[in-house]
Amino acid sequence: MAQNKTYKIREIASLLGLNFVGDGDCEISGIGSLRAAKSGQLSFLSNRRYADQLSQTQASVVILEERHLDSCETNALVSTSPYVSFARATELFKPLVRMDSGIHSSASINESANIPKSVFIGPNVVVEENVCIGANTIIGANSFIGHGSIVGQNCHFQANVTVYSNIKIGDNVILHSGAVVGSDGFGFAFDGEKSIKIHQLGGVQIGNEVEVGASSTIDRGAIEDTIIGDGVKIDNQVQIGHNCKIGDHTVICGCVGIAGSVTIGKNCIMGGGSGAVGHIAIADNVQVSAMSLVSESINKAGTYSSGTWQMKTSEWKRSNVRFQQLDGMYKRIRNLEKSKKEY
Amino acid sequence: MAQNKTYKIREIASLLGLNFVGDGDCEISGIGSLRAAKSGQLSFLSNRRYADQLSQTQASVVILEERHLDSCETNALVSTSPYVSFARATELFKPLVRMDSGIHSSASINESANIPKSVFIGPNVVVEENVCIGANTIIGANSFIGHGSIVGQNCHFQANVTVYSNIKIGDNVILHSGAVVGSDGFGFAFDGEKSIKIHQLGGVQIGNEVEVGASSTIDRGAIEDTIIGDGVKIDNQVQIGHNCKIGDHTVICGCVGIAGSVTIGKNCIMGGGSGAVGHIAIADNVQVSAMSLVSESINKAGTYSSGTWQMKTSEWKRSNVRFQQLDGMYKRIRNLEKSKKEY
Amino acid sequence: MAQNKTYKIREIASLLGLNFVGDGDCEISGIGSLRAAKSGQLSFLSNRRYADQLSQTQASVVILEERHLDSCETNALVSTSPYVSFARATELFKPLVRMDSGIHSSASINESANIPKSVFIGPNVVVEENVCIGANTIIGANSFIGHGSIVGQNCHFQANVTVYSNIKIGDNVILHSGAVVGSDGFGFAFDGEKSIKIHQLGGVQIGNEVEVGASSTIDRGAIEDTIIGDGVKIDNQVQIGHNCKIGDHTVICGCVGIAGSVTIGKNCIMGGGSGAVGHIAIADNVQVSAMSLVSESINKAGTYSSGTWQMKTSEWKRSNVRFQQLDGMYKRIRNLEKSKKEY
Repeated sequence: MAQNKTYKIREIASLLGLNFVGDGDCEISGIGSLRAAKSGQLSFLSNRRYADQLSQTQASVVILEERHLDSCETNALVSTSPYVSFARATELFKPLVRMDSGIHSSASINESANIPKSVFIGPNVVVEENVCIGANTIIGANSFIGHGSIVGQNCHFQANVTVYSNIKIGDNVILHSGAVVGSDGFGFAFDGEKSIKIHQLGGVQIGNEVEVGASSTIDRGAIEDTIIGDGVKIDNQVQIGHNCKIGDHTVICGCVGIAGSVTIGKNCIMGGGSGAVGHIAIADNVQVSAMSLVSESINKAGTYSSGTWQMKTSEWKRSNVRFQQLDGMYKRIRNLEKSKKEY
Repeated sequence: MAQNKTYKIREIASLLGLNFVGDGDCEISGIGSLRAAKSGQLSFLSNRRYADQLSQTQASVVILEERHLDSCETNALVSTSPYVSFARATELFKPLVRMDSGIHSSASINESANIPKSVFIGPNVVVEENVCIGANTIIGANSFIGHGSIVGQNCHFQANVTVYSNIKIGDNVILHSGAVVGSDGFGFAFDGEKSIKIHQLGGVQIGNEVEVGASSTIDRGAIEDTIIGDGVKIDNQVQIGHNCKIGDHTVICGCVGIAGSVTIGKNCIMGGGSGAVGHIAIADNVQVSAMSLVSESINKAGTYSSGTWQMKTSEWKRSNVRFQQLDGMYKRIRNLEKSKKEY
Repeated sequence: MAQNKTYKIREIASLLGLNFVGDGDCEISGIGSLRAAKSGQLSFLSNRRYADQLSQTQASVVILEERHLDSCETNALVSTSPYVSFARATELFKPLVRMDSGIHSSASINESANIPKSVFIGPNVVVEENVCIGANTIIGANSFIGHGSIVGQNCHFQANVTVYSNIKIGDNVILHSGAVVGSDGFGFAFDGEKSIKIHQLGGVQIGNEVEVGASSTIDRGAIEDTIIGDGVKIDNQVQIGHNCKIGDHTVICGCVGIAGSVTIGKNCIMGGGSGAVGHIAIADNVQVSAMSLVSESINKAGTYSSGTWQMKTSEWKRSNVRFQQLDGMYKRIRNLEKSKKEY
């Protein structure tokens, strides 16, 4: 991958607000791990486990905490949070996307749409009537934005994104390929014979600085809107049902499924493959571990789990036989205790 | 969202087949929940839990059971099934989709395709040879329909839908964005060194009144067809393997995975994130709870579950340590019982 | 589905390297199961369970092991591995895809892209700068290939596939509709207030003979590349996180989620809906059963599982009450044993 920008170490220090130790004029043109970085690249040490790689790295500069300076034989950028500083450094070296603003000739743009000149619209993009798009936003090839939707500034929609009609999306939002925002919530009334569709009349509101992963889906609300707070990060293959409210800065890992009308607090982490049943509430600062199901509301911050640990299948089968007998086992213990007392 | 249709209460009563109480000439222009509805909107009371909201609602008319009439201070529409009546009311107020029929100039339509004038084909849609599309069907932007596929009447495919070749889809079918119908079933024969692809020669048959959610995938059969019955409702992110047969009016919630050659009966509900292993059969009227795995056939109607409940992670770890020792615990109980008898 | 090729049995025998018994001039024009095959079709017997269908099949030829010849009343093709031979036979009868090579007039191809004349590029395909595509590759309608990506020979990308920039894909690779390769890995550094994006500077390398199912997603690496080995088969709705390394010929069934930086060995099988947490390693020849979570590294070949078996929900609830008390139950057993010793 082209990492074709170059910075002097003193420039990086200035851009990241860090002090440097060593040769400020040394030029850096990319990023590598401590183990794999080459001369001319920046690396970082944030996890103590890798501290012994520091002395042997080929990197030309390492972001690290002050206490590791002594073990560093190359140039250093001193940070109280090397991982955060590293994250900011990736911004400097991300590949240049050489997109001239403007609308590709093959795009189908309704004349009523409001699109500033700084916007980039890729090939075969379809923008329906009354759509508003903010300055400097990029809409990738073959994407679709339905009528009446509003997209903020500095957003980046990758190729093949679908935004239904009447959706509101904030600033600095990233939607990855295959993401779908505003599909119908799954609502039906069973009349005794068949399911009558409840047309989904609400929309979706997505805050600022939100990222939605590839092939993730966010349903529109039944009557009111589905709401995704500011700074929410959603990984790939996630499903968010209608009328959910996801609190600011909550992180939802890959393959999570959230049923309808779930309220999740701020700064939560839903682990990969976890789920939540409908109509429950999860407090702020809750962490749910991988592939766990939240089947009732959680009122208190903390870490929650369900399921069982991996075992060799032969042993797991034996545990499962007993799991099915567990209530009986409990009663047998109680009987034993009773008869002990009778002695 | 534009809810720009207006009906008098007496019109709604007539359209839904309900009696009204109050001012039949009052005009209604949208739908809201009891709590949030404004004057001029319709609401409904179907869940007793919300009965105390009835007296304070601002809605101009409420669909409710007769027994709640006394507590209703606004106009009422009396229904034996308020939720079903509400579902039908959403049909009245769903946003107008102002699509003129016809084929967008940017669509690529094979000349052998059979497309009545009443059909709407959006921008960049690709329709291959020998496709037949029924009257009044809408094919959203950037969708693809492979050669030889047949689509019924009054269907609505949203943007970015993919239908492979030689698929049969009934009438009134909704496919949401990202849905894929007819991808290859996952079939390989391992020759001792590598996996030899079994080309998937079957197709998919989808009945009438089926809805398929965003990013859901339905594989074509290996030799015979995968079959989705009438009235089946499939939520987002669902995977249905090759040669499955899903019975009429079964409901499949989000993130469900059904392996190959599974037969599911009629009127079943597969809860969100649940799954079924391959080559099993599930009877009619079975309900599987969220994130449960069906690993053997179910012959009898009822509710089935697997997995464990959510716990604080620290306590859950203690239970898991013991789960791994469960067979040993069982034997220790048995030994205790034996030695008790020996007294 | 059109199965419009016809072969004489002696031709099939020659193409598959098998001996035949019976009428070598008999013409075969399709494939069916033993039960459903019609005259003129080929069938196979690989699972003993279906041996009693052999005498009644209408198939004109059956692939079978020598020991079943006596029970076969029609023509036979004798194989030591009937299932593998059947897989090879499906190749003969797969539907003809009549695509003339060339670039559809509606495609947007950057002039710097390197595309041999034997390549087929469908309608509305977007190919960015410096993309290289190998001979005889097919890129389906509405697909996108980002700048700098390299695609091998004889690949088949179905409609609506997304390949981000700077991805390397080998020969004979199949990507199904909705597949996304190269989306950003899910990497953020939390600065105490919000998540700072770690731009994902790595790419994805996909080996030869790989198949990726519909709506599956493979993230690009953070710094180094995500790597998918030769012969890996990935089903629908699978998520593979950044920096994973998947060993050659491993099979990943539908709905699997693999978190970031997971190394999976060769010839593994990840069962449907299973998952793996981040930063672990799984040895060669490991099989993980359906909907099981791998939460720590597996160093030894074998079969692993987690979770519990399906039960009637009422009984399952009783087991779950006791699961929550399991550590207490263990201690009560220990106390009983202690007090027994004291006798």
